[in-house]
This record gives sequence, C-alpha cells and structure tokens, in this order.
Amino acid sequence: MGTDPTGTAADREFLHQAVRAAQQGRAEGGIPIGAALVVDGAVLATGWNKRVQLGSAIRHGETDALENAGRLPATVYARATMVTTLSPCDMCTGAILLYGIPRVVIGEHRTFLGGEDLLRSRGVDVVVLDDPTCVQMMTDFIAAEPSLWNEDIGVED
Amino acid sequence: MGTDPTGTAADREFLHQAVRAAQQGRAEGGIPIGAALVVDGAVLATGWNKRVQLGSAIRHGETDALENAGRLPATVYARATMVTTLSPCDMCTGAILLYGIPRVVIGEHRTFLGGEDLLRSRGVDVVVLDDPTCVQMMTDFIAAEPSLWNEDIGVED
Repeated sequence: MGTDPTGTAADREFLHQAVRAAQQGRAEGGIPIGAALVVDGAVLATGWNKRVQLGSAIRHGETDALENAGRLPATVYARATMVTTLSPCDMCTGAILLYGIPRVVIGEHRTFLGGEDLLRSRGVDVVVLDDPTCVQMMTDFIAAEPSLWNEDIGVED
Repeated sequence: MGTDPTGTAADREFLHQAVRAAQQGRAEGGIPIGAALVVDGAVLATGWNKRVQLGSAIRHGETDALENAGRLPATVYARATMVTTLSPCDMCTGAILLYGIPRVVIGEHRTFLGGEDLLRSRGVDVVVLDDPTCVQMMTDFIAAEPSLWNEDIGVED
C-alpha cells in the first residue's frame, strides 16, 4: 500500500494542526500522536494521546479528538474528515467506522500501519501524506520510549 | 451466525456483573450497556456507557471498562476476557483487537450486531449467551429512546 498523493493543501494545513497537538502531548511527557476532526472545512476539535497524562487506555489522538468534539449527530460525522499524524490503530479505526466518518488523512504509516485496509474495505477514503515531520516525530519517540510505545499498541514488551 | 452455547457458569456470573453495570447506567439516565474486564477469573474493572452522563462519544461499556482498568501491559490483556451485555460496536471491537484480548462473552446480539465476524477472523473466541435479561433491557431502552440509541451507534435519526 503506497502513498496516496491526492491530499490537498487544506489536508496539509489540517495535518499541521494535528502535528501541533502531537507536539503538545510530547511536551506533557506523553506519546506524540495528534488528530484533528474537520467538518465543513474547519477544525471542530483536536486531540492527542493521553495515556501518560490521564493514565488512559482509550485516549488516543483520534478518540481524544472525538471526545473533545462531544456528542454529535450522525449527519455531522457524515461530513467529517479525521486527520491524524499516524496510521490509526484498530480502536481508532473502529471509532472512525462506528461514526461513519467518510475520509481519513494520515500523516505517515512508516512507523506503524493500522487499519487502513479495513477502512478502505468499508468505503472510507484514506489519504496518506507521508509527512517527514510525522515520521521523524514517531521515530524519535519510539527510540526514546520503546516500552511506552509497546504498551500503547498492545504489544508485549 | 447463531448462539454459541459454550459459555460457562463463570461467564454467566460475569455477565450478571455487566448487567448490573448497565442497569446502573440506565438509573443514571444513560444507555444500558455494561461490561466487565475479567482477568485470571476475577473482574478487574466494570464499565458502562456514559454518553449521557459525561457527554462522551467514546465511553461505551467496553471502552469504559478498559479505561477504568487503567494502563495495563499486553501480558495482562492476553489473559483477559471482555464480558459485555451487547454485541460490541466497531469501536469496541477495535479496542478488543488493539489490546489482543483473546475472548469476548456477549449477552445478546438480537438488538444490535457488531463486529463479531471481524473478531473471529482475527482469532478471538466469541461466545454469545443470548441472555433474555440483556435482550429485554435493550428492547425497552430502544423503544423509549430511539434518537439517543441512533446517536450512540452513529445512525442518522
């Protein structure tokens, strides 16, 4: 599965906001994965992984953005794009499917490949931007905190 | 996909605890879906849907149980069973897959059928107890609050 070159300038701007969210998480001592939930061309909410900060098993970048956006009707999710710095894990893939979000923009999938095939098989438009800042951010983090990373993705350390 | 008759007496006792969690949620004005995360024959944490109580988009029964259990290493999830009153939605299915939980016990899948096929295709042992209390609880809730139920499963109202 290669890089999808169809990302727009707006996708790259929204990814930049997701990167800033991830950097905020890292500055807090957390895992640098961030997301932005975009609806009708505007960011409705950002989120970042809060495993360390909240002792959380379920606050990943994407799920934190969904939580920060609050309760929404299906009609809003149907117009949404989930922008995330990293390929979404199984849980975040499932959250995207649950709410029928039709488009996902991914910063990179070199350091971790999540549920992109499942998303595509369910009709979701998946764009991978292969952003070097996202790759470097995760490469540095995984090298610095391999045990924390394994815990976050459910891998035995 | 029929009912799996292989649930044990212990499964039914743990389901009873998940039902009590769901009933607690309903008593709070919420959606009556509950779960129990069982490890080594003991309930590590229970959880229930908190869409109404917390204005939450991600606190379903199963994810709330995972959150209440806190940060755990993969070795603990590898010995776990997720017991839930209702067939797990895509998000909760993904959370179970993320953490490599090898067994899921489901109260019922008559009122909602979630990701059971995906769980099985990834090697998870799925047991459906077809519990009449669980069926009645969801039937009553859906009749009373159809819009809230649609919102919870991402369906247009």
